Amino acid sequence: MALLDKDRLFPLEDRSRGIARALYDQVKGLPIVSPHGHTDPRWYAENEAFPDPAQLLVTPDHYVFRMLFSQGIPLEALGVPRADGGPTEADGRKIWRVLAQNYFLFRGTPSQMWLDHVFEELFGIDERLSAKTADMYYDRISDCLAKPEFRPRALFERFNIEVIATTESPLDPLAWHDKIKASGWSGRVITAYRPDPVIDPEFAGFAGNVESLGEITGEDTRSWTGYLAAHRNRRAYFIARGATSSDHGHATARTEDMSQDQAAILFEKALAGTCSAEEADAFRGQMLTEMARMSLDDGLVMQIHPGSFRNHSAPMLATFGRDKGFDIPTRTDYVRALKPLLDAFGTDPRLSIILFGLDESAYSRELAPLAGVYPSLKLGPAWWYFDSPEGMRRYREMTTETAGFYNTVGFNDDTRAFCSIPARHDVARRVDCGYLATLVASGRLAEDEAFEVAHDLAYRLAKQAYRL
Amino acid sequence: MALLDKDRLFPLEDRSRGIARALYDQVKGLPIVSPHGHTDPRWYAENEAFPDPAQLLVTPDHYVFRMLFSQGIPLEALGVPRADGGPTEADGRKIWRVLAQNYFLFRGTPSQMWLDHVFEELFGIDERLSAKTADMYYDRISDCLAKPEFRPRALFERFNIEVIATTESPLDPLAWHDKIKASGWSGRVITAYRPDPVIDPEFAGFAGNVESLGEITGEDTRSWTGYLAAHRNRRAYFIARGATSSDHGHATARTEDMSQDQAAILFEKALAGTCSAEEADAFRGQMLTEMARMSLDDGLVMQIHPGSFRNHSAPMLATFGRDKGFDIPTRTDYVRALKPLLDAFGTDPRLSIILFGLDESAYSRELAPLAGVYPSLKLGPAWWYFDSPEGMRRYREMTTETAGFYNTVGFNDDTRAFCSIPARHDVARRVDCGYLATLVASGRLAEDEAFEVAHDLAYRLAKQAYRL
Amino acid sequence: MALLDKDRLFPLEDRSRGIARALYDQVKGLPIVSPHGHTDPRWYAENEAFPDPAQLLVTPDHYVFRMLFSQGIPLEALGVPRADGGPTEADGRKIWRVLAQNYFLFRGTPSQMWLDHVFEELFGIDERLSAKTADMYYDRISDCLAKPEFRPRALFERFNIEVIATTESPLDPLAWHDKIKASGWSGRVITAYRPDPVIDPEFAGFAGNVESLGEITGEDTRSWTGYLAAHRNRRAYFIARGATSSDHGHATARTEDMSQDQAAILFEKALAGTCSAEEADAFRGQMLTEMARMSLDDGLVMQIHPGSFRNHSAPMLATFGRDKGFDIPTRTDYVRALKPLLDAFGTDPRLSIILFGLDESAYSRELAPLAGVYPSLKLGPAWWYFDSPEGMRRYREMTTETAGFYNTVGFNDDTRAFCSIPARHDVARRVDCGYLATLVASGRLAEDEAFEVAHDLAYRLAKQAYRL
Repeated sequence: MALLDKDRLFPLEDRSRGIARALYDQVKGLPIVSPHGHTDPRWYAENEAFPDPAQLLVTPDHYVFRMLFSQGIPLEALGVPRADGGPTEADGRKIWRVLAQNYFLFRGTPSQMWLDHVFEELFGIDERLSAKTADMYYDRISDCLAKPEFRPRALFERFNIEVIATTESPLDPLAWHDKIKASGWSGRVITAYRPDPVIDPEFAGFAGNVESLGEITGEDTRSWTGYLAAHRNRRAYFIARGATSSDHGHATARTEDMSQDQAAILFEKALAGTCSAEEADAFRGQMLTEMARMSLDDGLVMQIHPGSFRNHSAPMLATFGRDKGFDIPTRTDYVRALKPLLDAFGTDPRLSIILFGLDESAYSRELAPLAGVYPSLKLGPAWWYFDSPEGMRRYREMTTETAGFYNTVGFNDDTRAFCSIPARHDVARRVDCGYLATLVASGRLAEDEAFEVAHDLAYRLAKQAYRL
Repeated sequence: MALLDKDRLFPLEDRSRGIARALYDQVKGLPIVSPHGHTDPRWYAENEAFPDPAQLLVTPDHYVFRMLFSQGIPLEALGVPRADGGPTEADGRKIWRVLAQNYFLFRGTPSQMWLDHVFEELFGIDERLSAKTADMYYDRISDCLAKPEFRPRALFERFNIEVIATTESPLDPLAWHDKIKASGWSGRVITAYRPDPVIDPEFAGFAGNVESLGEITGEDTRSWTGYLAAHRNRRAYFIARGATSSDHGHATARTEDMSQDQAAILFEKALAGTCSAEEADAFRGQMLTEMARMSLDDGLVMQIHPGSFRNHSAPMLATFGRDKGFDIPTRTDYVRALKPLLDAFGTDPRLSIILFGLDESAYSRELAPLAGVYPSLKLGPAWWYFDSPEGMRRYREMTTETAGFYNTVGFNDDTRAFCSIPARHDVARRVDCGYLATLVASGRLAEDEAFEVAHDLAYRLAKQAYRL
Repeated sequence: MALLDKDRLFPLEDRSRGIARALYDQVKGLPIVSPHGHTDPRWYAENEAFPDPAQLLVTPDHYVFRMLFSQGIPLEALGVPRADGGPTEADGRKIWRVLAQNYFLFRGTPSQMWLDHVFEELFGIDERLSAKTADMYYDRISDCLAKPEFRPRALFERFNIEVIATTESPLDPLAWHDKIKASGWSGRVITAYRPDPVIDPEFAGFAGNVESLGEITGEDTRSWTGYLAAHRNRRAYFIARGATSSDHGHATARTEDMSQDQAAILFEKALAGTCSAEEADAFRGQMLTEMARMSLDDGLVMQIHPGSFRNHSAPMLATFGRDKGFDIPTRTDYVRALKPLLDAFGTDPRLSIILFGLDESAYSRELAPLAGVYPSLKLGPAWWYFDSPEGMRRYREMTTETAGFYNTVGFNDDTRAFCSIPARHDVARRVDCGYLATLVASGRLAEDEAFEVAHDLAYRLAKQAYRL
């Protein structure tokens, strides 16, 4: 018995299924381009073995532990560290058994599809995970992880990753990236410029962060012009380490285009910690426009992904800290929010902005119509909760008719779960091929064109959009 | 000719249709668990014959009369009572003929599917309802209703209802429930605690209602603490009559977690009738949190179903009163609205909240992400306008990938149309089996697991979620 | 090789495909009823040849040039006129080659489907448009346009258009319509009353426009009562030229029902140019209610289509003027916005309002529930960005179960692209037949009823709803 159906995610009707299979056969072996993600550059720099199955697949994956938590399993039982350093489960095998006993909870979810892909393709297991098979799984995976061919660089090569981006703060020295480069290893690991800690007046330690930015760059970040110069300087530093994009995850898509004098005054208040919530929001909006202005010169592609209410549960934030599965999407307005930036630079062909959404109702209503006319805008793929078969299908069905394929940017996986990268790209390739096959079978696309588009969506558009 | 296709609502493609059929064969005969609804307990207590076909199937069913009204048929012609006691059609046969002549209006709607199910399965009719067959229908149904096997208790048993909940105000003495119990009949009819009249400062007669609550419970409901004690007392009374849940249908999902002192002040203003609209809303929000606090002790499951703009037409409300098909869904925010309650009790495994939605754009964006992480939250089924094949399909497609199946609670029918209960559960079982079959056929779920999930969705999860 | 698949847009599964084909065979030849659109009445009045392929198919079609612009092609290169009269490409062949080279951008879009339909059905071309075939296309289409059978009236007849509506301002003398009538030609071209220039205080030249309205009608439009009388007068003038509807495209669905005294005061401020933005919005809302009041007397059907953020890009508006593909949909509330008008006249069977949407999340949540109960409301078809296969499919799937088919109004094309009219109606007929076939195949609709509904959706409902 196999965990994976070889025709999974293809349309059910025979003719379209056949077309999907043919399209997929052509793209399944293409290299992986992963231009947006959160793997740890240290893995590639040090190339140490991953510690154990639970540390690899359970404890760091918020998709996995949030589902278990939703059914009453404490995060402590899954080894998730507490902010107060209090005790959490340290025995990987015990954590693994909790996953195994509760694996039925993941029925119908992409997490199960990704995990089963890892189990079968990476570790060669073909029995379903359950209480009964828990220890067999644990032993098998542990054995594998001890072998050299399961170290990060070997996996990177086995996964056929052509390039992967990590995401770092401007305050990060990028030492791991330098170490990777110095090692002579051929794997291409680049960084991306994620300036929240020095852009968001409400980020913990904002003023200190800006001061550090000044020290690192040798600019006087107490003044607005020095602060902007420091960004330019630091962006150049990141670009020298391969960065081709910046990454912005504000709560809303708000942008501003105020005068430099007004911006300078707001910056002063931000440093002094006297911004109101509204002023802090306006400052973040202004900084998106400033980042766009810098992109005109240095060519960094901007990624904007608004709409997440971060760390929704106050007690969970207090007990376990950020990023514990409590980021919840909210309604997002793009049309009014982006107008100041777009009025300033939106029709400049030098600017490239990749827009992501967490509010699917905006796909057909706002995102596709905007990307279908502004030369600076492209649509990022369905991501986060929507990095899933149904999410991807709805994305194509709601954006293609207005924005076409060529105002989208292919797929990016956005993951910290390294082993799931091939699984996620495989799902995207299957779903896109299935969608294209449906268009062909219903007379909306010629078959030869579908082959070209399938290749573009699986490989070429991501490279082009991210300037890789 | 039959009215019902035996394979209705299954996927069209052969293999998935076959799987759906097999899944459905296994669940179609399971008992009905109906934990949320609005049938009249008096029916089961008195066990009288239903009066006539129009009184049974047209006049009380707002789905039916709203569609007829939308095409210009006055509600008076359908026998709907006027608030002023003015004349309305009293001849059941005339009302029935109006339905028959206009039955084409229901093409493609769930109402037609439910009615056809009742016509064929309950009354043995296999010709389509039309002007031509109106009198045949009327005579046949009238004849049936006169027979003992069409009395409420006989139908309850024929429908294979394991348990049904009605919904009552705290001021209701639950006399019909007591009478049912005293009768020795084995049918399980329980109540649910619906406290709007004594919780909503804008409810007609609020202060008097709270006074009555004090009298019934022997608590001093002029004080905040006495008022809370009265709720606790009355909840216990309801629990003794079988209640396992409370039911809350505020216009928004707003919750509050103010101090008891603040709450007491607001309560005083509410009693005095001096709350502003904003304060009334805040009070309702605070009471959801108070209800949650009580649930931690007495175990009542909370049902929260916000989002309906009630009685939208002022002239229709004046002429015909409440609940005449003019409740219209509106955009609903859950993420910010529920945060105060969730911060207070959302991770407490003793608390169980069933969340319903009328804004489908919140399924994938807010409801599934919230239910997929908070142990206290489960998702109620697609309901009201969405208690329909496409509504149920979209519900599964938009919630499963993030919340899975086990953060949902199976199906509940929410109806006052007694005879439609089997039809509604049948539609839900067919749609869920069709959805599961599609997952199996596209390699997203193993077939043996689909059988287990089908049983869970049709029967087990409702019992478990409602603590039945 | 053909550009068009004869079974395009039908369901893929065999049985439903067969039913769709049978339904479509019955409706494909029905006359076209086009009650809402923006073709130029001058075409039919003068009956001159269309100038060249680019002037016919590229330069005036914002769907086409917005997609090309989104990929960096300047509008000047497509011959779109600049507001300053600056140079733009005048060579039709050069413009055509730009389209041809970039035709791949339209893969999967309705634009490609419409254009291919025109290429194959109208101009007899069966090779795909590309850089290689650009000149062949240009020559072939140019040759055709020179022939008498490609003049507007000949095409009107060939397209089997039973009636077409254009859209004019109250200030338009309707001279082209009079000329058409005087010519003795049998084609039925009617007008529609679009009063934005004299209703919207923020419309450029509002006060002057109102003054002109006074001159044209002989009413004193400086007073509120004279202004209303002028509208009544002008509506009668339009009705005499065939108008059966008025057309309202405010940014929101807001309506008001203020006293006549309040309205008169607001009107005075509007004329004086002293309205705040809020007051201007309230005035527009009041005028919708006034238009409804007039409709009770003169029978004009009201079309309301809110939700578009017009001319989103300030620099593009400055450079190229209005209607250049920068109208972007926004979230739209109908439930609260329409209540004042609906409370005033919503249950009056003399009133007929056709509601359009650009926010698909409102289909199932607000639009279908409103149209499913108010006798005055009908739903306009999926339009603008949603006048597409997936847009139409979602529209039916999200509205039918609550509003049925008979609270919708069939299809209207809303286009200025004359040649695309048959293509657009063909897409709508195919998608509706496919939807009906799916209902039949899944046991939700009897086959004989599907034939009746298919005819209603393709032809009868539009005539009935628009009182044609």
